[in-house]
Amino acid sequence: MKLDTRIDWLGVPAASLDAEAQRAAQDRQATLTKPPGSLGRLEEIAIRLAALQGTSRPSLDRVRITIFAGDHGVAAEGVSAFPQAVTTEMIKNFARGGAAICVAARALGAELEIINLGTAQDPGPLAGVKDLALGAGTANMVIEAAMTDHQVARALSAGRHATERARLDGCQLFIGGEMGIANTTAATALACALLGAQPTDLAGPGTGLDREGVAHKATVIQRALEHHAPHLVSPLEALRRLGGFEISALTGAYLACAHIGLPVLVDGFITTVAALVATHIQMGVADWLFFAHTSAEPGHAAVLAALGAQPLLDLGMRLGEGSGAAIALPLLRLACALHNEMATFAEAQVSTQF
Amino acid sequence: MKLDTRIDWLGVPAASLDAEAQRAAQDRQATLTKPPGSLGRLEEIAIRLAALQGTSRPSLDRVRITIFAGDHGVAAEGVSAFPQAVTTEMIKNFARGGAAICVAARALGAELEIINLGTAQDPGPLAGVKDLALGAGTANMVIEAAMTDHQVARALSAGRHATERARLDGCQLFIGGEMGIANTTAATALACALLGAQPTDLAGPGTGLDREGVAHKATVIQRALEHHAPHLVSPLEALRRLGGFEISALTGAYLACAHIGLPVLVDGFITTVAALVATHIQMGVADWLFFAHTSAEPGHAAVLAALGAQPLLDLGMRLGEGSGAAIALPLLRLACALHNEMATFAEAQVSTQF
Repeated sequence: MKLDTRIDWLGVPAASLDAEAQRAAQDRQATLTKPPGSLGRLEEIAIRLAALQGTSRPSLDRVRITIFAGDHGVAAEGVSAFPQAVTTEMIKNFARGGAAICVAARALGAELEIINLGTAQDPGPLAGVKDLALGAGTANMVIEAAMTDHQVARALSAGRHATERARLDGCQLFIGGEMGIANTTAATALACALLGAQPTDLAGPGTGLDREGVAHKATVIQRALEHHAPHLVSPLEALRRLGGFEISALTGAYLACAHIGLPVLVDGFITTVAALVATHIQMGVADWLFFAHTSAEPGHAAVLAALGAQPLLDLGMRLGEGSGAAIALPLLRLACALHNEMATFAEAQVSTQF
Repeated sequence: MKLDTRIDWLGVPAASLDAEAQRAAQDRQATLTKPPGSLGRLEEIAIRLAALQGTSRPSLDRVRITIFAGDHGVAAEGVSAFPQAVTTEMIKNFARGGAAICVAARALGAELEIINLGTAQDPGPLAGVKDLALGAGTANMVIEAAMTDHQVARALSAGRHATERARLDGCQLFIGGEMGIANTTAATALACALLGAQPTDLAGPGTGLDREGVAHKATVIQRALEHHAPHLVSPLEALRRLGGFEISALTGAYLACAHIGLPVLVDGFITTVAALVATHIQMGVADWLFFAHTSAEPGHAAVLAALGAQPLLDLGMRLGEGSGAAIALPLLRLACALHNEMATFAEAQVSTQF
């Protein structure tokens, strides 16, 4: 696959919502055999999906989960509880179907796609893994920009292509996931840059740092922010200097989903930061995003709040890989089933009032 | 089916947990290819289910949902936004598969059972509905005890039989649901009696009362509490005087689940009050209960807090019928799938440390 080095597509406006389908779905909800509003957020989900899918009877039978993996040069600063080799090892685990997201995707009947955007150790060719390596991981953001112009453009384009494949395959929802040792460091730096927040406020344990490790991580992020400060003039430049291959691909994927009108279920901290970058590039993207959960990574709540997001779950998860979104998927599917299949008051001859 | 009028079975102690299976499940969690603890509450769920099911690899393939329906004499006080006829109409809707819980049960592949414990209007024989009518609804608790000794004993027994059927059929989880116009009034009265709370603090809109309606409902509950005050000497007597057929059946079901060692997923406000009664009768019942969600009914949070419950979802639902538990079921199932099917570090050759 040829990845585009142009970025002019980023400026395409988000698709608009179908107000007529939304109204029809609202009308239908009011006729179903239940007290009005008694299904709470499940009603909102069904109505919103109707507006996004352009039909009064939305459905999520076909769901694509795409995992973007990539390494981070900043891992050299000792910011992760796991060694960098784990990114490559986990790509192999994805390929063999042993990772959490593989189990969840099978259980949910969702289609799983793995994309390697570049790791320090080459995993070699693997069945079921698309090799789109842009380099042996990003550069160390403390010293230089994480990515070149070409790399960030191609990573964005990798995300765009993934969503376009999902759409062509008839998928009705896109879930992006990620794997990359040290990517909570990159994501936290990016969130600090876009929100004007302090690393000490947003940095967290990631895969399992202790208190001291988190303090060190915040210092590393602070150094990166100071190094790049004069150049953080746009969300795209912040992404290039502080982000990563997988974060850029997720940003491109969310932008492209909004362009082509494919609803998104956003996962955890890393993916929410990618969503933040995408909405800073193009505000209308927000309309296309559902947020699955509040993760245990402490910075997540701040980024969700900045996006005005109301996640569906809060189960203390912090694994990434799209796992939180996968766990939330049944809620969206059940919202559709209830909306589409419940009897109306008229059909069931149930009284609506005294 | 012959319902027992004896209640001596209520005193049977709860089954004990399998500490060995629990330890084996804990050990397994520590070997799975993810940072320790990163699946948050899903890890706790899998480990707890292991202890309850007595196996290191718990599963929830077969799930029984039993809906208990019954009418309430206190409906005569004008405490519901819907007419009493709706209980019977909804039983018919359950039979035809049009209600929310029917849709959810189909989507989840769960087994649904409907039990009519007695309504003001007889629905007549209906395929798929067990008729165990104990009367044309309960008596009006403002004037007299809601149930006779025989009625409450038989309702408890109806719940017990339902869980024993579920166990005999090989079900691995029991979900109880309810339908009964005015049953938030009965449940609130019962919660107030057991928790020493004020009706004005716990009374809520139920199916949709306005502010004035809620105030009236609190007054009605207050009158009932005052009428029965001298006699509220035990949880069972509080249940008989203030509860309902379906609330008693749920209480009996939860007690029996604990006796026979069948895990329970508790639904919303009414069912949580039944769980409160059950734990007041037999403390060990609590070990066998998962709590699905915090409903929008304001009294629910107080009852959950009294039980030390940590519900999985908070989606503003307030429908009853077991619908909140049904929506939470996929979380428990995914917790099992992840626990059972993820690769271990050794299997996947993934590094665990620097």
